[in-house]
Amino acid sequence: MTRLFNNPAAFADEALEGFAAAHRRLVRRVPGGVVRATATAPGQVAVVVGGGSGHYPAFSGLVGQGLAHGAAVGNVFASPSAQQVHQVARAAQSGGGVLLAFGNYAGDVLHFGQAAERLTAEGVPCATLAVTDDVSSAAAGESQKRRGVAGDLAVFKTAAAAAEAGLPLAEVVRLARLANARTRSFGIAFSGCTLPGADAPLFTVPAGRMAVGLGIHGEPGLAERPVPSADEAAELLVSTLLHELPEGVESPRGQRAGVILNGLGSVKYEELFVVYRQVARLLAEAGVETVDPEVGELVTSFDMAGVSLTLFWLTDELEPLWTAPADAPAYRKGTVAPVAADEPSTTGEAPEAADPDPVENTAVPEASEPSRAAARTALAALGAIEATVRAHADELGRIDAVAGDGDHGIGMRRGSEAAHAAGRGALERGAGAGTLLHHAADAWADRAGGTSGALWGVILRALGTALGDTERPDAHAVSVGVDAAADGVMRLGKAETGDKTMVDALVPFADALSDAVGGGAPLAAAWDTAATAADAAAEATAGLLPRLGRARPHAEKSLGTPDAGAVSLALIVRAVHGALSGSTA
Amino acid sequence: MTRLFNNPAAFADEALEGFAAAHRRLVRRVPGGVVRATATAPGQVAVVVGGGSGHYPAFSGLVGQGLAHGAAVGNVFASPSAQQVHQVARAAQSGGGVLLAFGNYAGDVLHFGQAAERLTAEGVPCATLAVTDDVSSAAAGESQKRRGVAGDLAVFKTAAAAAEAGLPLAEVVRLARLANARTRSFGIAFSGCTLPGADAPLFTVPAGRMAVGLGIHGEPGLAERPVPSADEAAELLVSTLLHELPEGVESPRGQRAGVILNGLGSVKYEELFVVYRQVARLLAEAGVETVDPEVGELVTSFDMAGVSLTLFWLTDELEPLWTAPADAPAYRKGTVAPVAADEPSTTGEAPEAADPDPVENTAVPEASEPSRAAARTALAALGAIEATVRAHADELGRIDAVAGDGDHGIGMRRGSEAAHAAGRGALERGAGAGTLLHHAADAWADRAGGTSGALWGVILRALGTALGDTERPDAHAVSVGVDAAADGVMRLGKAETGDKTMVDALVPFADALSDAVGGGAPLAAAWDTAATAADAAAEATAGLLPRLGRARPHAEKSLGTPDAGAVSLALIVRAVHGALSGSTA
Repeated sequence: MTRLFNNPAAFADEALEGFAAAHRRLVRRVPGGVVRATATAPGQVAVVVGGGSGHYPAFSGLVGQGLAHGAAVGNVFASPSAQQVHQVARAAQSGGGVLLAFGNYAGDVLHFGQAAERLTAEGVPCATLAVTDDVSSAAAGESQKRRGVAGDLAVFKTAAAAAEAGLPLAEVVRLARLANARTRSFGIAFSGCTLPGADAPLFTVPAGRMAVGLGIHGEPGLAERPVPSADEAAELLVSTLLHELPEGVESPRGQRAGVILNGLGSVKYEELFVVYRQVARLLAEAGVETVDPEVGELVTSFDMAGVSLTLFWLTDELEPLWTAPADAPAYRKGTVAPVAADEPSTTGEAPEAADPDPVENTAVPEASEPSRAAARTALAALGAIEATVRAHADELGRIDAVAGDGDHGIGMRRGSEAAHAAGRGALERGAGAGTLLHHAADAWADRAGGTSGALWGVILRALGTALGDTERPDAHAVSVGVDAAADGVMRLGKAETGDKTMVDALVPFADALSDAVGGGAPLAAAWDTAATAADAAAEATAGLLPRLGRARPHAEKSLGTPDAGAVSLALIVRAVHGALSGSTA
Repeated sequence: MTRLFNNPAAFADEALEGFAAAHRRLVRRVPGGVVRATATAPGQVAVVVGGGSGHYPAFSGLVGQGLAHGAAVGNVFASPSAQQVHQVARAAQSGGGVLLAFGNYAGDVLHFGQAAERLTAEGVPCATLAVTDDVSSAAAGESQKRRGVAGDLAVFKTAAAAAEAGLPLAEVVRLARLANARTRSFGIAFSGCTLPGADAPLFTVPAGRMAVGLGIHGEPGLAERPVPSADEAAELLVSTLLHELPEGVESPRGQRAGVILNGLGSVKYEELFVVYRQVARLLAEAGVETVDPEVGELVTSFDMAGVSLTLFWLTDELEPLWTAPADAPAYRKGTVAPVAADEPSTTGEAPEAADPDPVENTAVPEASEPSRAAARTALAALGAIEATVRAHADELGRIDAVAGDGDHGIGMRRGSEAAHAAGRGALERGAGAGTLLHHAADAWADRAGGTSGALWGVILRALGTALGDTERPDAHAVSVGVDAAADGVMRLGKAETGDKTMVDALVPFADALSDAVGGGAPLAAAWDTAATAADAAAEATAGLLPRLGRARPHAEKSLGTPDAGAVSLALIVRAVHGALSGSTA
């Protein structure tokens, strides 16, 4: 279990601060994460990686010459926000464009995707790549649904070495995709980690048993078996990976492969070496030549007891990228050419000047008096949202834990608090309803991270855009905003109704609101009707099987339990009704 | 707990094999451990380190350019044997002499000391240094009794950098001693590790509590307290170390210090960073400038949950040695100058040719028929010893666990089996009693490792020397041999009667045997009398407090329990009596 922390909510930030203090020669803190402290050649493609905290050395420990140019660092087990990714990418880029690379989890896909859109809009050439190496997380035919685990390292290393070699963005992307297509991982686990401040481990495995194919956030595994000997464990890992060779590889014989035997936290070095002894023998028997094997802790999950094997099937083109020198806090290889320390180009990037809440001090555009009145109602609604989320956070976490990683309650709480605070600040500076909701949207997405953070950012932003800062918002404008929010959520989340997501409650809510408003009902009454529809729809998700988001091989476990995102949406619209009832819209 | 292993008895060997396979660019396996795979300049002092397995990266992970030249690798938590140390030092040395450096544990002191004597006798200049950084293991005035923990790294690094700079042995030794005198560590722990194949952890700490000043093998700590916050833990670690500054340092203000924040196994990186954040702040407040801090796992104890802080108070002379480049499997810093791979100078050092039992195939000197008859009796006695040790191994382990690390039974079992097997081989090749016992002595010391292994090696060797290969051994010769054994054990173990060690049973046994033989009793009868004296003396050690060996702050715990070494000696002499009764001496 995690034992040493102060305020659990500050854990990821404090860890990043200590990390940067310990490694100031190699990395420099910027808002949202860290970048190299060493200079990068002008025009070089920047490889920016990232993900949640709790996986060290992924991701901050992999920043340095020959490896990542920067890492966006999210909260514990939660993706960084689009804003964090954007900030880190801006600080890391040096004119050659940016590759954003991350493990294939719904929240990361959303936030890195949004950041890429923003960078592209700003004229920074940008591409994204979601690593999909975990063979246990989806069938071979659906490899695009697979999770990224320790194979992250192979893909990041390839991309960064290609960038270091001066290749243009398109080539870096091609090689990184090739590396991802030729990297496979498989893992076993004996016990889960207990997050900072949590009462119980994320999952348990009965004594004497092991889980096969388990995810690094406690996502359910494929099967349970008795604890094997070290040799048997090696046999299972190797045979599973030799069973699924990459496209174009007919037989392992004569192939060359990079190898990563990764400890998840409390399976320790000597145990890893005992297992590696047999892994090396089995690979040699199969005719595979191992190249620069890595045996150690490269992607962890706090003190989770588990081990994974990664094979990176090399080509003549990929091998020199895998063996190229690198010098990051937690990964070194060969001898990098010494370079100068990087001088931050803007003082705003220095850690002392880091502004964790960039909307805080932004001047607000002028707003009409009616819109400022509506802003007061919007703020009251944000307060009601914060209160209802706080009251139900534990319950939401328990619902989410059935098929997900149980962090929904934490993320929603963090986001709703930040949104309410940002709204308050905006109102004090005279914001209209539109600007207030935009500030709240950015704060929610930035502070919550994760999938729900991104989606609630979209919802508040869509509402704000519909209300604007000039007109006195009427029921029609609100309904238009809710429709736009539903469209935005479906587009960004790539979800439709029936996929067991928040969309299952949001779309019926939007439709019912639109119908009621179209029928002439005042906003509060229309909202009440629509909230009832959302309640019923959220309950009904209990009968659905999830089809999207984080790969969940045991998703059928969640049958009988509603979707946490749909439930929280229904709770929130019910809470907002109280705030609207006092309004004049 | 340790989960992945095959045969627990083979764990350390298999881990070393996997380690060497994973790091073949940097290290090369030799009998007894590993040496650098890179070439060392002729005439450079070789720094050879070592200790038990289970502490990775200590010790094999610290071998490489700028760090150790070789590491002798013992069994789990047991010192390497003198023979292992000797073999590794022979393979590592390149003409400039050898510094043997290790943590200050009784077994390591014995075996490295014996190896140093052997190297010196062979004309290889040699010095030893026992690291004593753990302030919790003895009072400031008795720092020579302190254990070595994570401060090992500071001392090894200093010595190796001095060697790399071309300094002569005497200077390397002076600087390493200076580093040891200016290095202090202090640790806390939340739970112990479970050794491969063991049923229970070496120690437990109640939930919500932590042990302060605990040793890395489960040696009892100084106190128990509630689990602190990360900041409180940092405060405890820093204030304890600032309380005991090295000689000549009046105040921390203005000092420069190397820092090692070491995780013992399952306190993970992010937790360490959260603690380090506050450590760095507190040191800055105290006016200490930190130099090249290390935050990570450098001396572990499998998955023990604990953390220690080390401060290495630098001088102008020491700082460049601490910051010098190094390139070992688990420790890298700066940029080492590339050097050629080392070609093993003798094929005997290649792992394939490694002979784990070098006496196995040695030709034996000619022996008389009466001595060969006595050799059969000696072999029967070795068989009886093996059987009685096996029957009592668990009991011996339990007795040893009261104040020691509980490995006495395992070590005795391993040693007695090896001695019996070596004796059998010697007899088959026609050995006399003297040679047979010498082979058995070497095998016991080599295979058992630890303190008891060294001492039983001394006992069998003294007996063999007294019996020789020519004469028909009589009771007088045996008694002379036992006297010599007692003298040798006292000299090597630096113990006297009353120190609660094996000596407390061995000396009364030797005296009683000498008296009875002097009185004209035949050997079997004299031995019987003496065995009864040994029994009584072993029992009586229950009333003694230990005064020597591994530092034991809570040694009073062992009052009421006899010493495991004395008990096993009494058991063994009783068992040998049966073998002698059939003899004609």
